Amino acid sequence: MSALQLESKEQLSSRLVELEGIYEQYKQQGLKLDMSRGKPGPEQLDLTMGLLDCVNSREGYRTKDGLDTRNYGLLDGIPEMKEIFASVFEVDQSQVIVGGNSSLNMMFDFISTVYSRGILGNTPWCELKGVKFLCPAPGYDRHFAITEYFGIEMITIDMTPAGPDMEQVEKYVSDPLVKGIWCVPMYSNPDGITYSDETVKRLASLKTGAPDFYIMWDNAYCLHHLEFPGDKLLNLYNEAKAAGNENRVVMFASTSKISFPGAGVAAMAASPAVIADVKRRMSFQTIGHDKINMLRHARFFGSYENMCEHMKLHAAVLRPKFKVVLDTLEKNLGGKGVAQWNSPRGGYFVSVNLLDGCAKETIRLLKEAGVVMTPAGATYPYGKDPRDRNIRIAPTFPPIEELQVAMELFCICAEIACIRKLLGNA
Amino acid sequence: MSALQLESKEQLSSRLVELEGIYEQYKQQGLKLDMSRGKPGPEQLDLTMGLLDCVNSREGYRTKDGLDTRNYGLLDGIPEMKEIFASVFEVDQSQVIVGGNSSLNMMFDFISTVYSRGILGNTPWCELKGVKFLCPAPGYDRHFAITEYFGIEMITIDMTPAGPDMEQVEKYVSDPLVKGIWCVPMYSNPDGITYSDETVKRLASLKTGAPDFYIMWDNAYCLHHLEFPGDKLLNLYNEAKAAGNENRVVMFASTSKISFPGAGVAAMAASPAVIADVKRRMSFQTIGHDKINMLRHARFFGSYENMCEHMKLHAAVLRPKFKVVLDTLEKNLGGKGVAQWNSPRGGYFVSVNLLDGCAKETIRLLKEAGVVMTPAGATYPYGKDPRDRNIRIAPTFPPIEELQVAMELFCICAEIACIRKLLGNA
Repeated sequence: MSALQLESKEQLSSRLVELEGIYEQYKQQGLKLDMSRGKPGPEQLDLTMGLLDCVNSREGYRTKDGLDTRNYGLLDGIPEMKEIFASVFEVDQSQVIVGGNSSLNMMFDFISTVYSRGILGNTPWCELKGVKFLCPAPGYDRHFAITEYFGIEMITIDMTPAGPDMEQVEKYVSDPLVKGIWCVPMYSNPDGITYSDETVKRLASLKTGAPDFYIMWDNAYCLHHLEFPGDKLLNLYNEAKAAGNENRVVMFASTSKISFPGAGVAAMAASPAVIADVKRRMSFQTIGHDKINMLRHARFFGSYENMCEHMKLHAAVLRPKFKVVLDTLEKNLGGKGVAQWNSPRGGYFVSVNLLDGCAKETIRLLKEAGVVMTPAGATYPYGKDPRDRNIRIAPTFPPIEELQVAMELFCICAEIACIRKLLGNA
Repeated sequence: MSALQLESKEQLSSRLVELEGIYEQYKQQGLKLDMSRGKPGPEQLDLTMGLLDCVNSREGYRTKDGLDTRNYGLLDGIPEMKEIFASVFEVDQSQVIVGGNSSLNMMFDFISTVYSRGILGNTPWCELKGVKFLCPAPGYDRHFAITEYFGIEMITIDMTPAGPDMEQVEKYVSDPLVKGIWCVPMYSNPDGITYSDETVKRLASLKTGAPDFYIMWDNAYCLHHLEFPGDKLLNLYNEAKAAGNENRVVMFASTSKISFPGAGVAAMAASPAVIADVKRRMSFQTIGHDKINMLRHARFFGSYENMCEHMKLHAAVLRPKFKVVLDTLEKNLGGKGVAQWNSPRGGYFVSVNLLDGCAKETIRLLKEAGVVMTPAGATYPYGKDPRDRNIRIAPTFPPIEELQVAMELFCICAEIACIRKLLGNA
């Protein structure tokens, strides 16, 4: 197929008329489809329903150590759940804090702590002017939202197929006001990229101007392979420790997309010093998180190995959905030179780059026809994609038939937007 | 009985020798008793075991409205749980946010919000010097710990049988740097006092120097009567609204001592404007709290009325425990003029005031004999009881036989400490 750019104005205009006709037909269907968020589908949630029975009125509510999970106590979580997360993070159990149902909340709380009171004796960021954070983009909108909430200036770092552009990162971190970086190091949101060993090593050994520089290592998709064996990620903590920078690493994970998004278990891991200070704050904040829910998870999965095995069931549900997205993109937009996308080996998204200036218009056309997508720009700091080209597709939630319809329409809208752009009448 | 103060030095010395002998016998028993925290006993936790079965793999996981509680969504909680808490707070459902398992966490987050970013357009407290908070004492140590964590200066307000000394409160609040007050308005921790209607009205209509003055209304024991009908508390929100001060009221409650301390459901309520700003912050902080656990609670209790009825089962367990405490105090210390205490009609504590300067020594003696109590001073800001006289007794957790032993020993230790003080050899 020839690229659209090579076609004549007449060819493009005639193709546009054809597409607009098809678009109108879709519009009349009164669709109501939602591909806006990375939510698991109900068939995935069904995979862990047995978890709900793992603590009940007839069976024990005690941890292996005999602790009554119903009552107060255990600020940092029950031992059996710490053990599982210690394997997830590949660190010692003593470096793990098991939290509530939201790793996002743990990230927010971490930033809130260093902002308002500081840890490890560093100056709270609220007392400084001009604190900055590095934001590899496209990235996760909710990360950017946290730094924006605290008034932290965000610096966009380009993503490469190996992770954040490390030359840009290395350039910025000499500024002592650059205090950290957001990372989704495995099957990144939305690109599906797993950071290369070299990227991890360069992050671990960055020469930062700030003593309190934090790598917010959101390993949200660490077990979320679509193919097995999945990608391998180098352990950032070990690398940073070897480089004498262990206190810069703050790692997060959760079972939100392993068990239930609304009722999973989140955890964080960091150096002994950082964990001690986070626990100190926690001792003011709560008496402890939901231990009964931790026990449900520990019993249902039994071990880290079983949890990894369980992920194959998710993959079996998700592979056909990703295939629909990728096949439909290829069939309709392949070779036209107006769109490029990754074929992720895991995670929750397909990231599409259209011609510059075509993302917002595509999303608008989709919305008018009843398909809600993540807003264009959401994958960039301040919701502003400088080239207005990136769109995040979340294939996990809709049933496969709806996904097929939504993707056909997506391709039509994208092509309309791109042709209008090429014709100069966008 | 005559007061110890009236006895001769010889009489006191001889009584002291006798008590010290008994104390030594206790010591040799190698006791290991814990009366330090307001934890429900296991027999109370057994009362709601059925709750754990209310959402299971065979039964529905959907709210009344059909929402899948397993997935993401519903930032402020499921409607059926909001409905129950709306009755608890006596406000409209739209003014309720249902949270995670900890109302303490919601209080911490509220203070953290106004400290770091501010709400309703007010200046964040971190940008001000000398922010102060009023702390009626004796009070709840974890409240004071939150304000201390944020470096907020705490001003002790005396407690009266009708609540905080309102003349003191009214005097301090004209200072615009006085930003709020901690209150446990029903069956207060530790005094067991329910604020009088007049106290509530005066709080509602305080003329504060600060536009951002908050009454942190921790109604932790609102349903936790020991006798029925229980105390009645005037609705602070209604009073404040009538006085044009609705934005100063922030109310908290939880099922921690209704269902499970470790896995209950917490909630807050406030004016529409405050709730809107808190939700705005929450939208950065989390995608939502554990809705499955909310659904368990909503199904188990079914209604606010049933929940109130359920509290009679708790009261039946707790009444004999409180009776042991009060009877043992009366039998051993009654009329001796060295101790006074309240007879609470609800809540979780009995507060004892000894002779000035005798609380720490009593706690030390108890500890040496194997009984752990809340540290002396804990009920005051900065852990410092200026008269060193207040001790919080938490009768709920130990089995009744252990409680009996611990209380006998408590009275012995208290009398030893007081006699030593009277003899001038403390």
